[in-house]
Amino acid sequence: MGIFVTSSAGSAVGTYDPVTFAGLRFHTAVEQFRSGADTPRDYLERCLSRIAELEPTVRAWVVIEESGAREQADASTRRYRRGEPLSPIDGMPIGIKDVLETKDMPTEYGCAAYAGNFPKRDNAAVWALRQAGAVLVGKTVTTELAGPEPGPTTNPFNPKHTPGGSSSGSSAAVGASMVPATISTQSGGSLMRPASFCGNWGLKPSRGAINRGERQTASTTAHGVVAACPEDMWQVAIEIARRVGGDPGWPALRGPATPPPARKPLTLAVMETEGWDRLDERSREAFDRVTRQIEARGVTVLRRGDEPLIERFERALVGAAELTSLILAREHLWAFRDLVEAHPDRISARSKRFFIEAAERLGAAGYERALQDREVVQAAFAGLGSVVDAVVAPTSTGSAPQWLGDVAGEPPARWPTGDPVFNTPSSLLGAPAVNVPLMAVGGLPFGLQVMGQPGTDARMVAVARWLGEAIAPVIA
Amino acid sequence: MGIFVTSSAGSAVGTYDPVTFAGLRFHTAVEQFRSGADTPRDYLERCLSRIAELEPTVRAWVVIEESGAREQADASTRRYRRGEPLSPIDGMPIGIKDVLETKDMPTEYGCAAYAGNFPKRDNAAVWALRQAGAVLVGKTVTTELAGPEPGPTTNPFNPKHTPGGSSSGSSAAVGASMVPATISTQSGGSLMRPASFCGNWGLKPSRGAINRGERQTASTTAHGVVAACPEDMWQVAIEIARRVGGDPGWPALRGPATPPPARKPLTLAVMETEGWDRLDERSREAFDRVTRQIEARGVTVLRRGDEPLIERFERALVGAAELTSLILAREHLWAFRDLVEAHPDRISARSKRFFIEAAERLGAAGYERALQDREVVQAAFAGLGSVVDAVVAPTSTGSAPQWLGDVAGEPPARWPTGDPVFNTPSSLLGAPAVNVPLMAVGGLPFGLQVMGQPGTDARMVAVARWLGEAIAPVIA
Repeated sequence: MGIFVTSSAGSAVGTYDPVTFAGLRFHTAVEQFRSGADTPRDYLERCLSRIAELEPTVRAWVVIEESGAREQADASTRRYRRGEPLSPIDGMPIGIKDVLETKDMPTEYGCAAYAGNFPKRDNAAVWALRQAGAVLVGKTVTTELAGPEPGPTTNPFNPKHTPGGSSSGSSAAVGASMVPATISTQSGGSLMRPASFCGNWGLKPSRGAINRGERQTASTTAHGVVAACPEDMWQVAIEIARRVGGDPGWPALRGPATPPPARKPLTLAVMETEGWDRLDERSREAFDRVTRQIEARGVTVLRRGDEPLIERFERALVGAAELTSLILAREHLWAFRDLVEAHPDRISARSKRFFIEAAERLGAAGYERALQDREVVQAAFAGLGSVVDAVVAPTSTGSAPQWLGDVAGEPPARWPTGDPVFNTPSSLLGAPAVNVPLMAVGGLPFGLQVMGQPGTDARMVAVARWLGEAIAPVIA
Repeated sequence: MGIFVTSSAGSAVGTYDPVTFAGLRFHTAVEQFRSGADTPRDYLERCLSRIAELEPTVRAWVVIEESGAREQADASTRRYRRGEPLSPIDGMPIGIKDVLETKDMPTEYGCAAYAGNFPKRDNAAVWALRQAGAVLVGKTVTTELAGPEPGPTTNPFNPKHTPGGSSSGSSAAVGASMVPATISTQSGGSLMRPASFCGNWGLKPSRGAINRGERQTASTTAHGVVAACPEDMWQVAIEIARRVGGDPGWPALRGPATPPPARKPLTLAVMETEGWDRLDERSREAFDRVTRQIEARGVTVLRRGDEPLIERFERALVGAAELTSLILAREHLWAFRDLVEAHPDRISARSKRFFIEAAERLGAAGYERALQDREVVQAAFAGLGSVVDAVVAPTSTGSAPQWLGDVAGEPPARWPTGDPVFNTPSSLLGAPAVNVPLMAVGGLPFGLQVMGQPGTDARMVAVARWLGEAIAPVIA
């Protein structure tokens, strides 16, 4: 299934050090904006310089709208001067994954069939960000149709390695300190895995918690935020939710108007999934060193052998990644077939294979069974709510691998941007998940995932912040 | 709240006679297509002639795409000639409510702000209809943004009266025998009420049962079908569902590949809602004559006084119309505000009033309470499932009223296209509803509604067909 090299298996080592890496923060700049010691325009110019410097290597952006961003930053500067910022993120430079419509930039879904697509309207989240005074810098690279076919983006800590996908550009731009935050989306593992690979804080919210305001995508899809710090991550998410709510029929993201403070959990469960056996030795060791630290701080950490409800959940998760893929593929089938009919030569063989073939094999009755299978997994997960405060797991099967391409004569590989096995549970469950950039393997980031019951997004951010503050970064 | 005249209160009498009215059927023509005695092209030409004759009065269409329709009809003719029709609706001329995107026609939502909007892509249902070989004649008039502001369409049986809304053109075109079927949508009462006013058979499916494949509208919105006979109505719905399924995360419309045959129910409940007191005397008499006939055929008809579960449901329904409106308005709020900011002078005062004011009063917390209130109504309705096969009710508070305009100096009226009080329950409940054109009041149609538990669409169509066959039309 394609040729990969992992960091721990001898490819070039990356430059990431979780102890010294700081990233680009925004909330710490606001006081200077208020005092006049700094301005949103100056902050933006620093971002644009950084982009100019690193973009030739990282290739995180599809569009950079410098003049529009400068106008927005100047307007923000004037608001701070008047003492009237629109929100705590007024003036924040933000990148938007190129699957969300923007009225002033094209939206091309990483797909040649959408070249030049320019609907001139805003997605709900984009509209909300404008209302909050954010500065929209540009559109970030997505894999083709947010699927398995990679885009041009490289890992910001080693350009030979993948940034992860599908939110490749969003995560790489934050990892490269080009902007403090970006909007990502996740249907399978598209937000959390790149956040793990690029050293971001990442929030994949509960199902429906942030209004997608777009064409109906999949039932597992969520809009989320990646950032260099948990404060900016939460603030962006809550500013969107306060302005456009959740999806129709769903409660909006719940939580405070400012970042929830760190909160120590009493009990955590380790989620292994089928991915446990795919962790290389160094990554598993790094994760074990994290959990040992957690236990040393007086938190009970339960594993599948300790508690029958956890074992039951793990058994329900067998096949979850495949189940998620099938549901996704089936839900995209008609639109994908429509696109392929119109543009047969402008869609990759990999996308055709994974969007169409599996979904057609599944059939309509198979889809209904898959929805019922999902309910079984959700019920097993709900059972954990009574025994643990949150679930922790690796966010990926290791740090970012190096993708060397398909094997000649074999079908295209399924996951050139990495294995989503640790990410699909939160998608399937509609559960909130947070990536904490707490580990490094082979000089590349490797994330710790915190996942909770649907609706507990703010509590998961609080637990994640506690982990970020209480646990020393691990280098393996 | 505006000036109305009802048929029973002295306005000009309409020309509708439910005993002699036949409408335009399609399924009866297919045998002639197969034998060569008729062709889809000839069938289409008869439709186009009828449109040319009546459109100056009825004004059901925004766009009529004659040349495209002729090409499609010719292709269908060739398929029948080869003995290879694509489906039982191959060659059927169909109109599409102008809120569904069509790649070959503009989509203007009945709103000046969308004048010329032409996204050049197909909605899921439209794509499915093309796959099934249907002939897309044009786009039918919707009220502004499918809301309360009327379009130009008139009632096909008396041009002084409303056709109902928001699916005004879809229902009027079928009532005027211009086409055998059209696609409608309903968020509050937008499919069922016009079907009642225009003498259509109408199916508003269960929540999620037909893929909306479009920008997320409201959590109560469904795509449905109106037609001159139950056979064509069902066939169109099932052909769509078989090709594009339901909304992501929802099971598709369940039922047979051909129209479900009539099935006599054992027990029915009469649903009164708050609308019962708004029925004029003749309309209530017509409905009572229908229920007496049903009882005379040996079916038990239970009313709120007969069964505590029905009484409980009726009490839960108090305020349901307002609850539905609030949910809808809140779910549309951000998109509507975005539109008004861009086009402040191209949206009616009525739409602004009802889409924005109520939603802003409601607030985010109020919306969450409204979702919980909806769950209470749904639970009360689920309780009926154990005691009755289906619910019956008038589909509207009478036949189509004549709208004479707002009262000078007063705020714009809420419902110029008629009162949705009998329609909002099926929207709020996500329940399938069928309109049976069984009554006339003042020479205008007045429908009987059949409603059932979510997922029982095919059974409701079977019950509705039994009512259509077993009960003599009532003229009052």
